[in-house]
Amino acid sequence: MPPDTLRRVTIVEAVRWTDDGAGVRIIDQTRLPAECVARELRTVDDVCEAIAALRVRGAPAIGIAGAMGLVAALQPHADDPVDRFRWRAASYAERIAGTRPTAVNLPWAVGRLRRRLDAAQGDPPALLAELRAEAELVLAEDRAMCQRIGEHALPLVPDGARVLTHCNAGALATGGIGTALAPLYLAAALGRRIEVLVDETRPLLQGSRLTAWELSRAGIPVTVLTDGMAASLMAAGGVDLCIVGADRIAANGDVANKIGTLGVAILARHFGLPFYVAAPSSTLDPSLADGGGIPIEQRAAGEVVAGFGVRTAPDDVQVYNPAFDVTPAALVTAIVTDAGVFRAPYDFAALGSRPAALG
Amino acid sequence: MPPDTLRRVTIVEAVRWTDDGAGVRIIDQTRLPAECVARELRTVDDVCEAIAALRVRGAPAIGIAGAMGLVAALQPHADDPVDRFRWRAASYAERIAGTRPTAVNLPWAVGRLRRRLDAAQGDPPALLAELRAEAELVLAEDRAMCQRIGEHALPLVPDGARVLTHCNAGALATGGIGTALAPLYLAAALGRRIEVLVDETRPLLQGSRLTAWELSRAGIPVTVLTDGMAASLMAAGGVDLCIVGADRIAANGDVANKIGTLGVAILARHFGLPFYVAAPSSTLDPSLADGGGIPIEQRAAGEVVAGFGVRTAPDDVQVYNPAFDVTPAALVTAIVTDAGVFRAPYDFAALGSRPAALG
Repeated sequence: MPPDTLRRVTIVEAVRWTDDGAGVRIIDQTRLPAECVARELRTVDDVCEAIAALRVRGAPAIGIAGAMGLVAALQPHADDPVDRFRWRAASYAERIAGTRPTAVNLPWAVGRLRRRLDAAQGDPPALLAELRAEAELVLAEDRAMCQRIGEHALPLVPDGARVLTHCNAGALATGGIGTALAPLYLAAALGRRIEVLVDETRPLLQGSRLTAWELSRAGIPVTVLTDGMAASLMAAGGVDLCIVGADRIAANGDVANKIGTLGVAILARHFGLPFYVAAPSSTLDPSLADGGGIPIEQRAAGEVVAGFGVRTAPDDVQVYNPAFDVTPAALVTAIVTDAGVFRAPYDFAALGSRPAALG
Repeated sequence: MPPDTLRRVTIVEAVRWTDDGAGVRIIDQTRLPAECVARELRTVDDVCEAIAALRVRGAPAIGIAGAMGLVAALQPHADDPVDRFRWRAASYAERIAGTRPTAVNLPWAVGRLRRRLDAAQGDPPALLAELRAEAELVLAEDRAMCQRIGEHALPLVPDGARVLTHCNAGALATGGIGTALAPLYLAAALGRRIEVLVDETRPLLQGSRLTAWELSRAGIPVTVLTDGMAASLMAAGGVDLCIVGADRIAANGDVANKIGTLGVAILARHFGLPFYVAAPSSTLDPSLADGGGIPIEQRAAGEVVAGFGVRTAPDDVQVYNPAFDVTPAALVTAIVTDAGVFRAPYDFAALGSRPAALG
């Protein structure tokens, strides 16, 4: 292996302030991978529409967009009387927090701003400055979390590694460099020659549409495959390790993540490959003893049988479409969080508790 | 279990003679599942176009369509002088046999008609009758092969069984009731309450488009899932056994089949489920010691990243798109052929040899 050398890696920013600082600028993920369109959110309607229409997605990114969006939406109202400003802030916060009820990060992040507002004194410009400071914190903490996950996981990704991932746990899903993809960005920046094998991740294709796009844009070699091809690629010796994100992790280390993850973990075990999970410590849910208690959302049949604008199965069949599956801890080589690398038997007790992110 | 009771099960005929007996009637599989359109092939151009455009697919069905299509194309020329008739028959046979060069069944079936013609005497109507008799034999033998596979595999499919299958090894791929689906049709006809779980089978969706359609049409309950959902369904206890077809089987029992099959076999092993392969004995290739010698066709990237008329990945990524994978014999519970049920260690020596069918 050559000594690590620094390399310029361009990582997409899913959510940031607009150039004038008054609005929120997001990458419209519904337009990827065909085109990279930025969208500026300046009103509460803009913010709610962007979240509801999945223009911004991924639990951390949604929370950040909601918090920053609340600030942007209040910006033009800094001249209001203070009571009216506070009433409007509460009203906007409620609307934004309710846009995607299952995304725990959204009410969590918006709730932080509400509490900051409740504790603050002064006129609307002063209150707005407090809100902006809290939104900056939400963003900065998320960026730092991604960075720490990446650094903890970096030793797991050696030079030359061919890394299989599933779904999108990347920059597009966070305010920073992602979770599962964080060590890959850092490895590439250090000059390690890595290759990423991306499951397309049916039904919604977050792998081929989003992960392949953001990695490719960063100059990291990407190969896309259908979910059913991973076994063939592993059998051919084409994969060195697997790394995925997580939506919720139980106290015993069972991992809920995008549907298809369990299959990857079983294949990795069969072929003797490491299977890593990378996720913020906020994903840990100590209230759940094991994965059996994780509720699995069943989604609409159309995602499977009419997901491309074309009917791909007859009308009269049943469809199985769970959004997540649960990978038992026994199949997980290690769980990497911003607090470090954990291996079985898992003891997450030392970690703080933020609400678990499912969405 | 209730005593088996006969039940009416309507099974699609992928290839048959037209009502007037002069042409070949196929189900246009490119129109499924949106609509069931029959197409009549009466000229050599009709036959070649239907095979090349995948209107008829599946190695056995292609062979049958080619053989019957040759007869249909020659029918209007029974008044020709005998030399001209023989010249035309040879010319048409060559065109049809070359339509899909990798489909071994096609030259094999057309070759049978050519040899029959070479051995026959008489005027064109007499020669045509010989050719028709041979085409009828090709069809009848295939139907009988399917029926025998179904009967041998029937004891493996008990009342109440929830059976996972992958791709399409059904009536649409053969002249009869299919291979992997044959025991399912027989079980349903005997009144057994079975349920079939169908992997959609990316990239070309033969599972959701074809298998779900033909089983559903036969009144058999079908649930479609994406390939990445099979592990979740097995973990939930929703699968009792797996059965798939095969494109080529090596002497040691290694099985080449549609990409994604290997993953299903590994999952079945992980969850302790039987994994059966059902295929004609012509699929056995005693010239191959093991699956390592089976050539795996790599197909166009567009099937994976633009398969629905929509670009689903960025332009600058690599794509892995093998058409088949190889499941090692150790993961196969049993191989069911028209000659019986085989279990490891495999000894196929007693079986006759027809060309192996890959396509």
